[in-house]
Amino acid sequence: MKVIDGGITTANGFSAAGIYCGIKKKRKDLALIFSSKNANMAGTFTINNVKAAPVLWNEKLIKEDGEGQAIIINSGVANACTGHEGIENNKNMATMVANALAIDVNKVYVASTGVIGKQLPMDVIGNGIKDIVPKLASDIGSGVDAAEAIMTTDTFKKEIAVEIFIKGAKVKIGSISKGSGMIHPNMATMLAFITTDCNISKDLLKEALKESVQDSYNMISVDGDTSTNDMVLIMANGMADNAIIDTKDDDYYKFLDALNYINIHLAKSVAADGEGATKLLEVNVEGAKDKQQAASLAKSVVGSSLVKTAVHGEDANWGRIICAMGYADTIFNPDEVKVYFETARGNIKIVENGMGTGYSEEEATEILGDKYIKLNIFLQEGREKATAWGCDLSYDYVKINADYRT
Amino acid sequence: MKVIDGGITTANGFSAAGIYCGIKKKRKDLALIFSSKNANMAGTFTINNVKAAPVLWNEKLIKEDGEGQAIIINSGVANACTGHEGIENNKNMATMVANALAIDVNKVYVASTGVIGKQLPMDVIGNGIKDIVPKLASDIGSGVDAAEAIMTTDTFKKEIAVEIFIKGAKVKIGSISKGSGMIHPNMATMLAFITTDCNISKDLLKEALKESVQDSYNMISVDGDTSTNDMVLIMANGMADNAIIDTKDDDYYKFLDALNYINIHLAKSVAADGEGATKLLEVNVEGAKDKQQAASLAKSVVGSSLVKTAVHGEDANWGRIICAMGYADTIFNPDEVKVYFETARGNIKIVENGMGTGYSEEEATEILGDKYIKLNIFLQEGREKATAWGCDLSYDYVKINADYRT
Repeated sequence: MKVIDGGITTANGFSAAGIYCGIKKKRKDLALIFSSKNANMAGTFTINNVKAAPVLWNEKLIKEDGEGQAIIINSGVANACTGHEGIENNKNMATMVANALAIDVNKVYVASTGVIGKQLPMDVIGNGIKDIVPKLASDIGSGVDAAEAIMTTDTFKKEIAVEIFIKGAKVKIGSISKGSGMIHPNMATMLAFITTDCNISKDLLKEALKESVQDSYNMISVDGDTSTNDMVLIMANGMADNAIIDTKDDDYYKFLDALNYINIHLAKSVAADGEGATKLLEVNVEGAKDKQQAASLAKSVVGSSLVKTAVHGEDANWGRIICAMGYADTIFNPDEVKVYFETARGNIKIVENGMGTGYSEEEATEILGDKYIKLNIFLQEGREKATAWGCDLSYDYVKINADYRT
Repeated sequence: MKVIDGGITTANGFSAAGIYCGIKKKRKDLALIFSSKNANMAGTFTINNVKAAPVLWNEKLIKEDGEGQAIIINSGVANACTGHEGIENNKNMATMVANALAIDVNKVYVASTGVIGKQLPMDVIGNGIKDIVPKLASDIGSGVDAAEAIMTTDTFKKEIAVEIFIKGAKVKIGSISKGSGMIHPNMATMLAFITTDCNISKDLLKEALKESVQDSYNMISVDGDTSTNDMVLIMANGMADNAIIDTKDDDYYKFLDALNYINIHLAKSVAADGEGATKLLEVNVEGAKDKQQAASLAKSVVGSSLVKTAVHGEDANWGRIICAMGYADTIFNPDEVKVYFETARGNIKIVENGMGTGYSEEEATEILGDKYIKLNIFLQEGREKATAWGCDLSYDYVKINADYRT
């Protein structure tokens, strides 16, 4: 696997565009992704009981035939809690894109992110769709435009592309995503779009995405709030002309590894760019008796407000880590736990047998001064492991979320 | 029921003391509660998988015979994650109290709050126990001393007493509690102690406490972290000489109502005194199909970081409320939801049928300017309801928890 320049337009047959159409005040707010050939589609969606109109739309399309050619994405307005009018607006948005591209409306997927409870400005979006379709292009710059147009309070764009060889053919996968900040942050919506020219069956595409999201986007936590609009969509148009992946052979796992690499890379970017974040926090749990135990403990630690504030303060407050493990929805033996803090500045054991090691506070604080902090937890109960990512909890998190309309 | 002056020493036969013995740097750090007559005991304890030594000790005593005469409480050190030595220290602490009071060690309950992972300074505590026993007294001031000695970063002491008439006898109930702040905050430990002279069977005492804690302490959230040391203990010594409550008659419910009043009052105090809190947040969910649905939705909203920061910013950001309801572990119909903001400054409907009402932002902000904010949510699915309490998330929360050792 090789990381290559590019993003959402890198795989064969994909083009994209990103423009400012007037939903937001100044910045780009409309993105379009297009596959010249009908693609297999898979998606994972928010588990929030309140689902935005585009989430319901996409879930239905994937259930019906799981194919598609376009994804239209707006930022600025989430089209959530918008009732029947929101459902109609979403459908009209898809219809306008379908007409402009001369494709079936059931091949057009939709994503929205932004303020909850506001209706989409359909006249502005209608004009935007007319403007964006002629701009579709497959160069790197057009992918960058799309990556920027889906941003809200993200402080940097998030994109990546890789290539792998599958059954002798060169296969490319590209992706853009956005994280947990918004200009008008009603909430932290996470969106990710992946394009690939890999020839893979619908069933295995679905399974690979599900498994990969489980180990990447589902293992990050910024503030514990699950949005109404979260989604990850993948399009596979088969234009790499590799022999189809339709069984779980080595090539399937090669594809899955590449997908994992992309999703983990972008999920970490989303965590590192959490609202007000100054540090990326990685929690590794090893020696677990099963995957579920490891994942549950890692997520509980990375989501603890007390751990996040301690990390912000560069304070080796290991009691909070053990405590957060204790209220995870799993059982473990605290008397066997080891904890290390690891950064580019060093590695220090702070807990052994569930108790403090008498480590040097000065050394621990020095190590925690880095921007990328790993908490490595060893259970000694088995051989499974899991990793979760998050960020510190800073003054700026409160500022961004308390003051957004003042 | 009548609220009366006093606290933990108000009921007949109870005395208390609170002193500085040297565990903390300056402030009172050791409290003792004593019943002159053997009392029925009930307790509820943290559900954290990692339980501090005193939690394990008390759980065992209550399981064995459920009686007691004394509770010794230290602040400054939590005696959690302290291994075998911590278990031994806890037992020695109980033994020293038992010897000084000339009672059986199995009648002495223990509570600790403070830094995790440090051993108790047993010499200091031993001297403290010698000093505190002669100070036991049943005046109001001694109860205040005990209320102060269990505080950590609490900004005010928490105590209350009430009297009721049960089967012709005057029955008193008093209580002290501490909340979610610590000078060295390894975590937010919640402790509450209740004394009553009511004559009530062990079984019904246990049931009343369990039910009452469910509607009070279990319905507050400061930062979502569940401590290793949380506990609520009640002592009932029967010295009011009322005919025993041993069936669920009207007098049982009268006692339960009084207990609820006390526990809800103190739980709200704990929420209002959350670390860095500037506002008390009350979330009422009505019209639920069952109690579990109402409680789950109320707790999800009160615990949402995005709701808490919006309340801090006095921002009527109702989308975050609907979103937090959506990720609660229950199902509801968002299209039927109504939401009101209510304070002493007014009452405003901001959501109807799951959508914004077109309310005045100025009016909403004015209403949210108050210190005690109620979010009243109506589901229109049934007749059950629940209330949860919390606080806003402020810059100071981050400051207190990030910087505590610098």
